[in-house]
Amino acid sequence: MAGQEDRTTPPERYGARLAACREAVAERGLAGLMIGVGPDLRYLTGFAGEPMERLTLLIVPREGPVSFLVPRLEAQKASETPPVAGGQATVAPFEETENAGSRAAELLGRSIKGSVGLSDRLWAMHVLALQEALPGCRFERASTVMRELRQVKDEDEKRLLGLAAAAADRALDAIAAGPLVGRTEADVSREIRGRLLDEGHDTAEFAIVGSGPNGASPHHDAGERVIAAGEPVVFDIGGTLAGYASDITRTVWVAGDKDAAPEPEFTRVYELVREAQARATAAVRPGVTAEAVDAEARGTIAAAGYGDFFTHRLGHGIGLEVHEDPYMVAGNATPLRPGMAFSVEPGVYLPGRWGVRLENIVMCAAEPEGRTILNHSPLDLRRVRG
Amino acid sequence: MAGQEDRTTPPERYGARLAACREAVAERGLAGLMIGVGPDLRYLTGFAGEPMERLTLLIVPREGPVSFLVPRLEAQKASETPPVAGGQATVAPFEETENAGSRAAELLGRSIKGSVGLSDRLWAMHVLALQEALPGCRFERASTVMRELRQVKDEDEKRLLGLAAAAADRALDAIAAGPLVGRTEADVSREIRGRLLDEGHDTAEFAIVGSGPNGASPHHDAGERVIAAGEPVVFDIGGTLAGYASDITRTVWVAGDKDAAPEPEFTRVYELVREAQARATAAVRPGVTAEAVDAEARGTIAAAGYGDFFTHRLGHGIGLEVHEDPYMVAGNATPLRPGMAFSVEPGVYLPGRWGVRLENIVMCAAEPEGRTILNHSPLDLRRVRG
Repeated sequence: MAGQEDRTTPPERYGARLAACREAVAERGLAGLMIGVGPDLRYLTGFAGEPMERLTLLIVPREGPVSFLVPRLEAQKASETPPVAGGQATVAPFEETENAGSRAAELLGRSIKGSVGLSDRLWAMHVLALQEALPGCRFERASTVMRELRQVKDEDEKRLLGLAAAAADRALDAIAAGPLVGRTEADVSREIRGRLLDEGHDTAEFAIVGSGPNGASPHHDAGERVIAAGEPVVFDIGGTLAGYASDITRTVWVAGDKDAAPEPEFTRVYELVREAQARATAAVRPGVTAEAVDAEARGTIAAAGYGDFFTHRLGHGIGLEVHEDPYMVAGNATPLRPGMAFSVEPGVYLPGRWGVRLENIVMCAAEPEGRTILNHSPLDLRRVRG
Repeated sequence: MAGQEDRTTPPERYGARLAACREAVAERGLAGLMIGVGPDLRYLTGFAGEPMERLTLLIVPREGPVSFLVPRLEAQKASETPPVAGGQATVAPFEETENAGSRAAELLGRSIKGSVGLSDRLWAMHVLALQEALPGCRFERASTVMRELRQVKDEDEKRLLGLAAAAADRALDAIAAGPLVGRTEADVSREIRGRLLDEGHDTAEFAIVGSGPNGASPHHDAGERVIAAGEPVVFDIGGTLAGYASDITRTVWVAGDKDAAPEPEFTRVYELVREAQARATAAVRPGVTAEAVDAEARGTIAAAGYGDFFTHRLGHGIGLEVHEDPYMVAGNATPLRPGMAFSVEPGVYLPGRWGVRLENIVMCAAEPEGRTILNHSPLDLRRVRG
C-alpha cells in the first residue's frame, strides 16, 4: 500500500458537517435526529464502529445541546471525536443495566412532540425501544436530511473515494492477470480479499467471483465451482479505505494455455456492455437526472435486443456506504450535482450461460468536464492465459 | 487452514429450524415474523449476505405459506436455499421500481391484525416502510421467538463454533509470538486480520490492539500508537467461519530484547483477572443463571479492591452473531442450558495506565462436565521478547 496517502479528515470538517446538519433539521421542522452507529454517525462525528445490541446514538435536537449517548465502555472513544473534543456535543454514558431507550428519550426531551428522524440503518430493536420511549412522536427516515448532506461529497471525501478506487484498481488488475484456471471461485475470492487489504483497504467487504454460468447471477457469491479455460468470469470487488467504499466490476475471458476463443455472442455482448457503460458515463454532467443516465445505458442495451437481460438498475451512489443516494434508476429524477459519486455498471445476464458486467465509479464534476472517472483499470476485454 | 473440516450445515437442519420457528410463532400467538438479512435469516434458511437498502425478507405467517421476498437479482440465490429447494418456502421476487414494503404486507396478508415480530437487526428504513404498509399491526422484536431457538446450539452449530474458536486460537498465538516492539497498533491489527483469514475465517471482523494506556479503553480501535517494550497489549480478535463467530482476548506483556519486567501491580491484576475468568468458567453448569456467572467474576475482582475498574458485563452469547443471547450480566436470570455458548471475559482497566482482559468462549454442557471451553490458547502471561 502507498504509505504517503493522506487518509485523515480534519476536525473542522466534522464541525462544518454537524453545523449544516443542525441547519437542515431546523429547515425541515423536525424535532430532532437520532443517529445510530453507521455511515451517518461517521459522517457527522468520525465515530467508526459496528452497530450492536448496545445503543450508541447521536441525538441532535432542533434546539439545545447535542448529546452523544454511548455505553460506558465506548465513552473514552466518543470523547475523542471532533464534535465532543471541540465542544459541539456532550458524551452521555449509560451503564450495562440501564434502559438506553429511556435515556435517549430524556436527552431529546421527554415531552417533545413532532417528527424524529432515525438513521436509516438503526436496528429494529432500537427503533422499537425508541418508539416505546417517545410515544408522542412520529418517526421518519433521517435520510431526508442526511441524504442532502451526504450525496454531495466534500473535498476530503473526494480524496478518500479516489484513494479507495485506486486501491481497488490495483487489486482487480492483479487478479485479472491470473492464474485462474483450476482454482475454485472461493479460493480466488479469498485472494481478492487479501489483495484489497494489501492495497490499503481497511476492510474487504465483497469479492464476487462468478465463473461461467454463475456470472449470470449478478449477486452470486464465490463458491466451490472450479474455473475452467473457455469461459468468462465476473469480478465485482470492494472494501473500505478510511471508511470510504470502493466498488469495481470487470469481466474477463479465461483463455487458458490453449488460448480458447470466446463464442461470437460473448464478444458482441461484451462490446455492447462496454458501449452502454461508456455512453452512460458520457451522459453524466450537472443537471442531468439520475434516471436519464440509467436510460442511456438501458436504451443502448435494449436497442441491441438484450433489454430483458439487464435486470438491475444502472448504479448506486457511493461514499461512506457502498450503496447510498443517488440511485441511478428509473424514477429517480434527482438532477446530478458536482460532487455526487456513483457507480455506472450495466450488465447483461444470460441464464445458464454467462454474464457480463462492467463498473466504474464516476463523480459528477463542474462543466466543462462534467465528470471524473475514479477507476482506471482497463475496460478492454482481458484474455487470461493461466 | 485445515482443509478437512466439515463446514457445511445439512439441508434437513434448516427444515427442522423453520418447523420449530413456525411452532413458536403459533405458541406465542404472533401474526407472523418478518426476518431481514442477518443472523436470523441465515439460521432459518442458510441465506447469507449483507443487509442493504433493497429489502430481503422471509415472511413467516402463523398460518399459510412462507414467502421469501427478494430483489429480483437475488432470486436465483434465494431459490437455492434449502427451505425453497425443499418446498417449505416460495420465492417472491420484486422489481427495482416496486414498493417492497407494500409487497411484504400483501404476502403476510393486508388485512392481518395482531403482532408482527421484526428481526432485531432489520434497518430502520425497512421498519418504517413495513409499519406504514401494515397500519393495523403492532410490531415487536422477533427475538422473543428467535432467541429461544438460537441460544441453544444444535450439533452443527457446536461443530462450527468449535472450528471458529480453533482458528482464532491459532491466529492469536501467532501474533502473541511477536514481534511487536516498534510496530503500530494498526500494523499489528492488519496482520491479525490477515491471519484470521489465513486460518480459515471467511471474514475478519475485529482486531483490537490496545497497547499501554490504550488497553484501558475496552473497545479501543487499533491506532497509530507505536508499541514499546515494557508495556502490556490487549488483543481482542475475531471473525466468522461458515457464519459462526469467534472472539478471543489475551493480554500479553511486551518484554522487548532487554526483557523488561512488569510492575508488580500489573502482575497482581493479571493474576486476579485470570482467577476471575477461571472461577466464572467453573461456575458454568446447567441451571445456574447468567447473572450468577457474572457475579462470580465480579465478586472475585471486587474482593481484591478493583470492582470499580471492571466496567462491563462478563460476557455475551455467541453464534451467528458475535453478541447475542444469553448475555452474562446482572439482571439476566436466564438459567443456563446445555448448548448455550457465550464469552467469559472479565477485565480490569486502570485509566491512563493499562488494562487486562482475558476471554474464552464457553459452552454449557450436560453434567457431570457442566461446560466445554472452546478456546485452548494459553492463559499464562506471555512475555513477548521482540
